[in-house]
Amino acid sequence: MTKPSLPKGTRDFLPNEVMKRKYMFGILEQVFQRHGFVPIETPALELMQTLTGKYGEEGDRLLFKILNNGDFLAEADANALETKDSGALAASIAKRGLRYDLTVPFARFVVMNRNEITFPFKRYQIQPVWRADRPQKGRYQEFFQCDCDVVGSKSLLYEADLISIYSEAFSFLGIDVAIRINHRGILAGIAEAAGVAEQFTAMTICIDKLDKIGPDAVKEDMIRRGIPSGSAEKILHLIGIQSLDALRPELAPTASGSKGLEDLDKIFSTSASYDLAQELVFDPTLARGLSYYTGFIVEVVAKNAQMGSLGGGGRYDNLTGSFGMPDIPGVGISFGAERIYDVMESLQLFPESVVSLLKVLVIGLDDQAITLATSVTNQLRSNAIPSDQYPEVVKMNKSMKYANDLKVPFVIIIGQEELLTRSYTLKNMITGSQEKLTLDQIIAKIKQS
Amino acid sequence: MTKPSLPKGTRDFLPNEVMKRKYMFGILEQVFQRHGFVPIETPALELMQTLTGKYGEEGDRLLFKILNNGDFLAEADANALETKDSGALAASIAKRGLRYDLTVPFARFVVMNRNEITFPFKRYQIQPVWRADRPQKGRYQEFFQCDCDVVGSKSLLYEADLISIYSEAFSFLGIDVAIRINHRGILAGIAEAAGVAEQFTAMTICIDKLDKIGPDAVKEDMIRRGIPSGSAEKILHLIGIQSLDALRPELAPTASGSKGLEDLDKIFSTSASYDLAQELVFDPTLARGLSYYTGFIVEVVAKNAQMGSLGGGGRYDNLTGSFGMPDIPGVGISFGAERIYDVMESLQLFPESVVSLLKVLVIGLDDQAITLATSVTNQLRSNAIPSDQYPEVVKMNKSMKYANDLKVPFVIIIGQEELLTRSYTLKNMITGSQEKLTLDQIIAKIKQS
Repeated sequence: MTKPSLPKGTRDFLPNEVMKRKYMFGILEQVFQRHGFVPIETPALELMQTLTGKYGEEGDRLLFKILNNGDFLAEADANALETKDSGALAASIAKRGLRYDLTVPFARFVVMNRNEITFPFKRYQIQPVWRADRPQKGRYQEFFQCDCDVVGSKSLLYEADLISIYSEAFSFLGIDVAIRINHRGILAGIAEAAGVAEQFTAMTICIDKLDKIGPDAVKEDMIRRGIPSGSAEKILHLIGIQSLDALRPELAPTASGSKGLEDLDKIFSTSASYDLAQELVFDPTLARGLSYYTGFIVEVVAKNAQMGSLGGGGRYDNLTGSFGMPDIPGVGISFGAERIYDVMESLQLFPESVVSLLKVLVIGLDDQAITLATSVTNQLRSNAIPSDQYPEVVKMNKSMKYANDLKVPFVIIIGQEELLTRSYTLKNMITGSQEKLTLDQIIAKIKQS
Repeated sequence: MTKPSLPKGTRDFLPNEVMKRKYMFGILEQVFQRHGFVPIETPALELMQTLTGKYGEEGDRLLFKILNNGDFLAEADANALETKDSGALAASIAKRGLRYDLTVPFARFVVMNRNEITFPFKRYQIQPVWRADRPQKGRYQEFFQCDCDVVGSKSLLYEADLISIYSEAFSFLGIDVAIRINHRGILAGIAEAAGVAEQFTAMTICIDKLDKIGPDAVKEDMIRRGIPSGSAEKILHLIGIQSLDALRPELAPTASGSKGLEDLDKIFSTSASYDLAQELVFDPTLARGLSYYTGFIVEVVAKNAQMGSLGGGGRYDNLTGSFGMPDIPGVGISFGAERIYDVMESLQLFPESVVSLLKVLVIGLDDQAITLATSVTNQLRSNAIPSDQYPEVVKMNKSMKYANDLKVPFVIIIGQEELLTRSYTLKNMITGSQEKLTLDQIIAKIKQS
């Protein structure tokens, strides 16, 4: 006999959690589909050669590897066994791993299915991923990602498209957000204007910490990384200018800066037709630490919850290059599903109706009544009303406790009298009121409730 | 550069496959919910101690094991390493595995969450499982299971409930099915009536092959397994009687047979209120090879497709015993999702509308028109019409080819004239007809299409 438990960093989802998650993902899917995005799914298992080297050294370390089946030692690296080198041995006894994110599988998907899909290809994908990270509050080893990308086009209309998806999705979910955008060109232009074009990467690493450590520490950090003090001051001054027009005189003369200005102008003007001026803000401090992005960068934060980023993304140049299909540009965003769920819980944004699926519990007071209860339950179901019956004759307080535990809004009670009159007692479990009604009246009443 | 591929036995799902699967699972979920079932989800990762020994020797062999992270050799079984014993080594370097079915995780879930759930607990679960089986046509290493169980009650009303779920679900999916039911007690009664009560298991193993090998071979098989020839003949005679009433005189005198008759009588009489007499048949040859089931047994087969079983289930006594929580009875059914999908494909049961999400593609013929196209697209989306625009100015045949590839039913074309008149050309891509309409007229037309 084993006392059961779960691997650390994993969770069961109880029914009301599943229903809330379905509600959240359902809203996102509806928005994606309205914008012409279509869903794909990829397997949880990928070949290690697909995953390895795509996420940096840290990422490689956090990959879950699947032990080869059968007599895996027969083909194990003898040298690694000899020297007890776990890393080298793993490569010879685990040819498959678990999906670590949705981007690399998507790139593989695009290459393998290039003849089945139409470019520009607008796909969304909502699936779990696995990372052997140290679990902590809000961080799991198995969690969902939710990505939305357009590949095969350089058109900036898709930037505006994705911004409006963020806007609509969070509006439907009920979360007030700010959508911050920036551009790699703006950051490169700032580096150039500050005379440190060569130190672009060091600069962005430092800027990325601004929210956490403040401007003084960022300046120190830049100086420590070899950026002259004057340049560091200039950089801090420029990223403090939260207006494209005010930055324009400084950046227009730089090559990358002018490209950044041009793209962002176009994105803002296109977004104007989307009526989201209030949420969309230019933020030159936004760096997202990623050398991955080559143009537009975006991040969403909740206004009424201390939760950090609820999503982010940007434009990239070469999604599928590592799989031998060069020059496929793209732009994408992701939704931090686990965090969004937590924000919605904390702000009580899930409608009550989402979790109370069952509308009616039918209770029969004796064996004959139980038989009629089956028929009544069945007729309610035929009328698309989620219903159930208590399965045996018990004391009323026991069946009513069951109804309460299930949070069912209506109970129908059937006894000898109801058997004769075919008029049933309908109890509203929220108000406590009771009335005698025919089944047709009950159906009408519940449908309009 | 890696030429990408997938692990054997795994698949990508293209958008129209995902949409069809969502449609299929959506119908199943709707039926489950209507019957008062609620969803749960469990993690893909389970502890090996949860999984091992639950599926027999063959099952243990087919479990996917996750290599421990970090320096797993540091804690490896030195003896197993020395003797190159893969099986023993695996136990020391892989503490987690992938879900093999939904039943064992459900049992673990019930025990771990016993204080959060209300019994009788009606749950459904639709999630992938992993088995290192040899892949072949229609058999995958990663595939979906779809289970529906009631635990914590012995009431036979739930048998009828589940039968009606099968009936409704397949009716909504459009598949004509026969729902065959039997009872362990009937089979035990047959063994008893044939004088081979002790050889019950051998008998059921043989009967289970009847469909595949025919009665003569079944008889030979029984004799080979030590059942006397006369008894084998009697068994074949009895399982040939496809009527409860005709079997009654033979089985009523046996202890297990009379229990089987009583339960099935009750299940048939309860099911009468469900109006599914046509599909529901008693089938004494149904054994489902499982020592797991202790009462009612059910199986669904398609009438118009050569596909074997589309689902099955039965009553069991002790779901959670191996996790230290005895005496939790239950009854459950499963849907063979992958097979059901294949049947629906072969019978063309997926509505066309399921896969063509996008309703309108808006095409701008020049830069000015592109800007108006963005606004038009946006207004269509605000009216809940899934819409997209072609993202740049190209030759008409290129954008129309895109519309065709996406199978979009309507195209709106915007040129200089439309910029002036705000009257747009709406092309019906199915009939080929074109007309000039205002945006309001277009919205009304598409909404009613």
